[in-house]
Amino acid sequence: MTTMKAWQMTATTRPLVLAEVPVPAPEPGEVLIEVRAAGLCHTDVGILHDPTWLERVGPLPLTLGHEIAGVIREVGMQVQGWSVGERVAVNPAGGTRPGFGRGGGYAPLCTALPDDLVRIPEGLDFPLAAAGTDAGRAPYRAVVVRGQLAPGERVGVIGLGGLGQVGARIAVLRGAEVYVAEPKQELWAMARELGAHEVAADITAFSDLDLVVDFAGYGSTTAGAIKAVREFGRVVQVGMGRLESTISTNDLILKQVTLLGSRSGTVDDIAAVYEMFASGELSPTLEQIGFDDIPAALDRLKAGQVTGRLVAVY
Amino acid sequence: MTTMKAWQMTATTRPLVLAEVPVPAPEPGEVLIEVRAAGLCHTDVGILHDPTWLERVGPLPLTLGHEIAGVIREVGMQVQGWSVGERVAVNPAGGTRPGFGRGGGYAPLCTALPDDLVRIPEGLDFPLAAAGTDAGRAPYRAVVVRGQLAPGERVGVIGLGGLGQVGARIAVLRGAEVYVAEPKQELWAMARELGAHEVAADITAFSDLDLVVDFAGYGSTTAGAIKAVREFGRVVQVGMGRLESTISTNDLILKQVTLLGSRSGTVDDIAAVYEMFASGELSPTLEQIGFDDIPAALDRLKAGQVTGRLVAVY
Repeated sequence: MTTMKAWQMTATTRPLVLAEVPVPAPEPGEVLIEVRAAGLCHTDVGILHDPTWLERVGPLPLTLGHEIAGVIREVGMQVQGWSVGERVAVNPAGGTRPGFGRGGGYAPLCTALPDDLVRIPEGLDFPLAAAGTDAGRAPYRAVVVRGQLAPGERVGVIGLGGLGQVGARIAVLRGAEVYVAEPKQELWAMARELGAHEVAADITAFSDLDLVVDFAGYGSTTAGAIKAVREFGRVVQVGMGRLESTISTNDLILKQVTLLGSRSGTVDDIAAVYEMFASGELSPTLEQIGFDDIPAALDRLKAGQVTGRLVAVY
Repeated sequence: MTTMKAWQMTATTRPLVLAEVPVPAPEPGEVLIEVRAAGLCHTDVGILHDPTWLERVGPLPLTLGHEIAGVIREVGMQVQGWSVGERVAVNPAGGTRPGFGRGGGYAPLCTALPDDLVRIPEGLDFPLAAAGTDAGRAPYRAVVVRGQLAPGERVGVIGLGGLGQVGARIAVLRGAEVYVAEPKQELWAMARELGAHEVAADITAFSDLDLVVDFAGYGSTTAGAIKAVREFGRVVQVGMGRLESTISTNDLILKQVTLLGSRSGTVDDIAAVYEMFASGELSPTLEQIGFDDIPAALDRLKAGQVTGRLVAVY
């Protein structure tokens, strides 16, 4: 049995360990993927440091990494429609659960279920494809699928982190007039580059918005979003910075606001984002790192020292 | 100039005054209605006792009463499609604003705008028509229009007051399996008479509901409703017992719940409720009182001593 090196979580709050683990073999109904790029995500920070995640993760030790793009190396029995050599990414929200329930992308090889695979179109490279599985899919779903953005609408975007940047740009590309709320003033220039119409520190600086997508989720941002929308406005909640929010049910009722939780997404959502990526109009800021840099980069992510999206490229 | 007696509000927390006021004359574009029945509403209690209402009410003194059914006595100039003698009710949420911005139904006559009129179908009496403008329209809108109830769905109804009773019955008639949450155990028998499948003190006694309509709005009820619905479940917020609610954004996001504020409604909503009333299948409990009893009945409403819906009949 051959082995490979993988970054594994062994316990909460413990650093990742570079372990020598067996190369996985695809079971019937699975494919084996050669990982070319793996995105680093705030969720990894949560899994590593918040013990409540242990209910949904494991068993430990576990190779993390749920934003995976690569090439099919081997096709298991009973798998139809997929061939060795195809460029694919894995939907992190499907039954595969890479980096949650089975070994993920912080290793050179991993297995996946065919239902969770998305073909990477020509002209889209592996790092962008990896980041798109999560950082593309989630904002696309929030803005387009749950938010039902219509061209010409006035759309607020709260938080210009990795997801918010993509969400703001998707809204611009879909013909919205975009209002960004971001307390860090050093990000305001980026908001304008993305095509935002106005930028402010807080969403309540704006009013009568048709739709607000809250990528921050600090409780107060949800409440502010409900204040900032018009009668019959919609608020989509993506960010979970806090677990609770105190909202004005008075505003909610009198304006007949709709508040929608949004998370994850489907392979179709990812495919739709890939089309936008491939057109070149949507190009999120990536920071590429090497396989060896993963633990240090996760520490930087935890410390809030990362703009854009981190992707490990092998 | 002839006069009439009207129950008027003169100031916040002051009792209604039986005033001698001029009989209103319809302006061009208005009709004059002979009031036959006027419903009493919790909102009247709010208007009378909560000073924040003063922003939206007046000028004082003002004849209250916004649930109005009667007969057209006179048709103003430029009014088309309505005739003297027609049996009509007035949409409280339209531009007429009876009992808010102009004299309402606690008087024998009042004016209204044709856009807010609803014809009362044969077989429906004035008291039920009056109660239906608000206590019928609001739950219909919440359950059917905002809640988008589908036959066979599992639907929670929180609060079995005047609106909740109608809401629960509408849900039953529309083919839902209804779960009532009502802390007052003396109302549980009524819940079963309305056709409820199960009754409990708190909505969190149930789970995996498709839709919950919260007619109470005590903050904790909104939070409980979000817990009680399934993935992609909907929660409609109608009741405003408290102005704020602390909800779990964690639940909202992970289950991708949709929370919808709902209020008021259209003449079409009222017409739809009238059809259900006229069929005999939806028959809310009414308590009929006389014109002279209005102030004392509002006090009972304030004290929470009223089951059913109060209607003054002239």
